[in-house]
Amino acid sequence: MSNAEFKQLHPVLTERVRLGIMALLAAEPDAVSFKGLEERLGLTKGNLSSHLRKLEDAGFIEVFKEFVDRKPLSTYRCTDTGRSEIKRYLETVERMLKLGR
Amino acid sequence: MSNAEFKQLHPVLTERVRLGIMALLAAEPDAVSFKGLEERLGLTKGNLSSHLRKLEDAGFIEVFKEFVDRKPLSTYRCTDTGRSEIKRYLETVERMLKLGR
Repeated sequence: MSNAEFKQLHPVLTERVRLGIMALLAAEPDAVSFKGLEERLGLTKGNLSSHLRKLEDAGFIEVFKEFVDRKPLSTYRCTDTGRSEIKRYLETVERMLKLGR
Repeated sequence: MSNAEFKQLHPVLTERVRLGIMALLAAEPDAVSFKGLEERLGLTKGNLSSHLRKLEDAGFIEVFKEFVDRKPLSTYRCTDTGRSEIKRYLETVERMLKLGR
């Protein structure tokens, strides 16, 4: 494994919670609500929020905010950038780790 | 992706530097010196030390300490546990992320 290859692992993706969020959103054709993510990942609201923010800042996910029954509802969707970064992450990890098997 | 699957991602491995160290050591039949890791990963001594300690505590690598020309020399090697955890990590990441492609 070269130094350059190692540096290709996007830092935003090398974290368990963020990888979990991305895997979940990338597999969903529809946007997923905050509550849905919270339940399926078993995370606290604060922890989930802070990771969602990082993924949004990186442009990997997008958030839609609307009002449903006068209550605010946030839903999240994987962007095209997010999908291509996931693909690149997987390819890099496969290339890096398969050498050692 | 299920909650159980998400939890299978070993926390010690979901960090870029540690993944890099493991990839490097798993690909090497011989033990690698601290200096060798430092140069190949382009990390500072302090950063590298702290991640090596976490990998050692998890049983994924083992360290050999000896004296060469009266100077202490530490070398590192991937353990069988480390190899099987890398395999499991790769399988989990592939299963999680391929759904979204």
